[in-house]
Amino acid sequence: MRQRIEHSLAKRGDRMSVVERVRATYARIAAVDRPEVWIELRPEADVLADAAALEARRAAGEALPLYGKLAAVKGNIDVAGLPTTAGCPAYAYRPARDAPVVARLRAAGALILGTTNLDQFATGLVGTRSPYGAVRNAVDPSRISGGSSSGSAVAVALGVADLALGTDTAGSGRVPAALNGIVGLKPTRGLVPTRGVVPACRSLDCVSVFARTVEEATLALDCLAGPDADDPTSRTAPSARRAPGRVRLGIPRPDRLGELRAGWAEAFAHAAEAYAAAGAEPVTVDLEPFLAAARLLYEGAFVAERYTAVGAFLDEHPGDVDPTVFSIISGARDLPAHRVFADFAALDRLRLHADMVLSTVDVLLLPTTTDHPALAEVAADPVGVNSRLGRFTNFANLLDLCALAVPAGEVAGLPFGVMLVGRAFSDALLADLARRVPERTRIVVVGAHLRGQPLNHELTSRGGRFVTAAVTSPEYRLYALGTTPPKPGLVRVAEGGAAIAAEVWELPVRGFGEFVGGVPAPLVIGKVRLDGGEVVPGFLCEPAALEGAVDITGHGGWLPYRATLTGT
Amino acid sequence: MRQRIEHSLAKRGDRMSVVERVRATYARIAAVDRPEVWIELRPEADVLADAAALEARRAAGEALPLYGKLAAVKGNIDVAGLPTTAGCPAYAYRPARDAPVVARLRAAGALILGTTNLDQFATGLVGTRSPYGAVRNAVDPSRISGGSSSGSAVAVALGVADLALGTDTAGSGRVPAALNGIVGLKPTRGLVPTRGVVPACRSLDCVSVFARTVEEATLALDCLAGPDADDPTSRTAPSARRAPGRVRLGIPRPDRLGELRAGWAEAFAHAAEAYAAAGAEPVTVDLEPFLAAARLLYEGAFVAERYTAVGAFLDEHPGDVDPTVFSIISGARDLPAHRVFADFAALDRLRLHADMVLSTVDVLLLPTTTDHPALAEVAADPVGVNSRLGRFTNFANLLDLCALAVPAGEVAGLPFGVMLVGRAFSDALLADLARRVPERTRIVVVGAHLRGQPLNHELTSRGGRFVTAAVTSPEYRLYALGTTPPKPGLVRVAEGGAAIAAEVWELPVRGFGEFVGGVPAPLVIGKVRLDGGEVVPGFLCEPAALEGAVDITGHGGWLPYRATLTGT
Repeated sequence: MRQRIEHSLAKRGDRMSVVERVRATYARIAAVDRPEVWIELRPEADVLADAAALEARRAAGEALPLYGKLAAVKGNIDVAGLPTTAGCPAYAYRPARDAPVVARLRAAGALILGTTNLDQFATGLVGTRSPYGAVRNAVDPSRISGGSSSGSAVAVALGVADLALGTDTAGSGRVPAALNGIVGLKPTRGLVPTRGVVPACRSLDCVSVFARTVEEATLALDCLAGPDADDPTSRTAPSARRAPGRVRLGIPRPDRLGELRAGWAEAFAHAAEAYAAAGAEPVTVDLEPFLAAARLLYEGAFVAERYTAVGAFLDEHPGDVDPTVFSIISGARDLPAHRVFADFAALDRLRLHADMVLSTVDVLLLPTTTDHPALAEVAADPVGVNSRLGRFTNFANLLDLCALAVPAGEVAGLPFGVMLVGRAFSDALLADLARRVPERTRIVVVGAHLRGQPLNHELTSRGGRFVTAAVTSPEYRLYALGTTPPKPGLVRVAEGGAAIAAEVWELPVRGFGEFVGGVPAPLVIGKVRLDGGEVVPGFLCEPAALEGAVDITGHGGWLPYRATLTGT
Repeated sequence: MRQRIEHSLAKRGDRMSVVERVRATYARIAAVDRPEVWIELRPEADVLADAAALEARRAAGEALPLYGKLAAVKGNIDVAGLPTTAGCPAYAYRPARDAPVVARLRAAGALILGTTNLDQFATGLVGTRSPYGAVRNAVDPSRISGGSSSGSAVAVALGVADLALGTDTAGSGRVPAALNGIVGLKPTRGLVPTRGVVPACRSLDCVSVFARTVEEATLALDCLAGPDADDPTSRTAPSARRAPGRVRLGIPRPDRLGELRAGWAEAFAHAAEAYAAAGAEPVTVDLEPFLAAARLLYEGAFVAERYTAVGAFLDEHPGDVDPTVFSIISGARDLPAHRVFADFAALDRLRLHADMVLSTVDVLLLPTTTDHPALAEVAADPVGVNSRLGRFTNFANLLDLCALAVPAGEVAGLPFGVMLVGRAFSDALLADLARRVPERTRIVVVGAHLRGQPLNHELTSRGGRFVTAAVTSPEYRLYALGTTPPKPGLVRVAEGGAAIAAEVWELPVRGFGEFVGGVPAPLVIGKVRLDGGEVVPGFLCEPAALEGAVDITGHGGWLPYRATLTGT
């Protein structure tokens, strides 16, 4: 449902004027009813005025690579005219000017919708640590959005923003991308200015980009990247390295990934196969130096850099701060300086080992995060749940790596994401590689699209790939409809259901869209629950079509039923 | 005196076998009687055995760029077979193998004489903070050698070692070079491995080189530099930049140098002129961001990195540690971690300003240090005196710069040194520039070498340059000797002296050597004290020649006396 709405909005966007798109967007913001996404949503009239001015710039011939893109900005980044809150009302200030990243977005033709909710002071990976409300997941509102760039990610995932700025110190620009099924691009440190951003760990912070496609994220990065003479963390990329002909893709041994959510290890293995199929050469790598570096971020003295940034404020306003955030940052007040240097030494040793691993590959492939907790789980254990989510993201900035989180299908009806990780300034290589692997989605088929059946070619001709034979959960009935060619109708029933034989196929998202568009009534594409509980898009049937159809549930599937016919 | 001895040893060295040089060196070590230079001087027999083995390697055709060079190693660097003390006997351990730098010296054909004294744990710029004794200056034993690489610098300055390894975190490889009149090369961080070195501030430490010429220091660096796969701080130089045709030389405004020892501001101005004369384009620069960064090193939280290195040892052995060193390092124990990150932020801002300055020049020229204290001055104020010495050296490693300290003549009989400072990996550029400026020395002339006089061409033809008209202190008598052409004889007397008119000239050291070599008896070159107290090499005369000479002191100088003759 979500994906189709986005798609239609984007499609219509091509034909609509920017002013019309702004109006449609504000209507959609109202329709999705996710007020917790925003800290400051600009009045529609202001954005409409910007849109009119933008159309005038375009008419005057200005080059505007992000022309008319609707952008959301994380609430710890300065937007002139709006308060910068960092998720803490008592901390808020009104910046005199845009942060350079926001100014660059506007210069490239984007329209700023407003500032988004976040884990306070960008301290968290959950998206719940905010007095503006826990940000609910775009797909399943009972689950977390991920954080800390929670509102930005959900705004993009819901299709109300085309682009959003996040920040990423420990994974804040990637974890919420994975949990909401979108792209999260964490550039090389220093490539994008961080001036005008409330620091989390100043020396590690990056501004990140959320988008629905790698192309859009890359286009935005091209507009955001570049030196900033007033930003001491700014770095200039060395001359571009060309992508190697065959990318060596480092993939950890599955048993070294640690505990993952049910089905994610398999989904990761599928993603790895997809990259190999797209031409990457898989290389098994040792992830341990990376994981050890990741642990340093919160278990070591680095968290004291958060105290450097906002500790004085916290000491003066203990009652105005989220209790979890307060305890994390205040807990770093008395860490000794000599531990910082000991951690630097430890990190240097780990970097040496990490560099040895990286010398054998061009890019690492990892799950982006480890789990997708419910809001209630985080409430019960706010620190423990949070820290597990950063296992694969915490090390990137410590080890000076860039990363790109991309969707990799769904597991049990929730988005699953993988992450490409590379050396500093290999941002373009990650995007090139990600683009070679079409995003895939699964579909459950039960009739004429099964292997060997007359319509199977509709899957294979669109890049479809057989994943597995399966059976549904025992809550369906199967009918032989009176169509030509004959087709089955699958219907979920409250009682008296049975398990029906099925096949799971996988299609590139683009192919899936075409395929769904071509499904003739009375068949529909809905969600089918499989034996193991996984919910996957698949064929169902309109109730109206069942009139006069033959109930063939007793055969257990379409093929056994057809076999009885052939036998006659 | 010192210089002539070195010169002769080096000259003889060209003709001597390595074994013979070792014997001569041990004789000289005994003759100079500076036992405090060494912590562990290897037995002569051991070095002779090494020399014999080395001659065999040479005979076998091995390429040995440092063939037969006698090298001293600072006592915080591992030498297999000797204890590594870091200047603290209770801390000592016996390393199983050479530090990579020592191994590389040996591989290149150098012979290791032993380990040298240092400010304990490389904490100091004075050379007095050691239970092995305060290291006395090579030129004036009542004054400090500078530190922390005290013994290494003095060993080279006394001509008992050709080369020595130091370390340089805050200036330890440069201050003692300046105070002893030799070259101190502090390479770009990471260019030379620091594995096997007792850390001072691990992230800032460099291994440095002492030599008597830039050529020798550069040759040694070529042998020491290179990646070390087991050293996390190791960095590889990017492809060499060619030296610019005309080097832009950043020179601070003289009034921004702060307080300098009497005569040093003028000596620095002379050095700046010499670089301009050698083709460098002087550019006035603002030194403030560099000086502010320098202050961060000891006034900020960076000193906690010293506690990280040896704090646990100090806590267990308070009585075994130099009291000043103990108070500095232990004082950093309770510095908070958040101050480290605040200092990093401050340093990043200063680096931005420093980079702006550096973008206008290729190299900075600075005095290497600020003063040359007596041992007694340091004893009276061990911390204050020390910290003033680091004004121009403390910032180099914090700002990731390389530096080359070179002699720039003498002031009041003591060596004066300047320092070339450049961006990371511009090491070769610094050496190229330094080689373009011949080391110069001053000479006081009182007679036939004065401007317009018959032998003045002996100065000008050797690159001599008039510096200033001067008068001696009022303790000389002047005689007209019976030579051809007629020459004056200047003699210092205990009583009844007068001030005599003179000129100060400056000569390249090579030219000075030739010039002195050509001075005919009864004239001699000794030291002449000028009006302001400065002691400069200059013409004196053998007492025997005064018999029958005319005392012309009453004329106040050679020219007024000659004018009376012309008048007749």
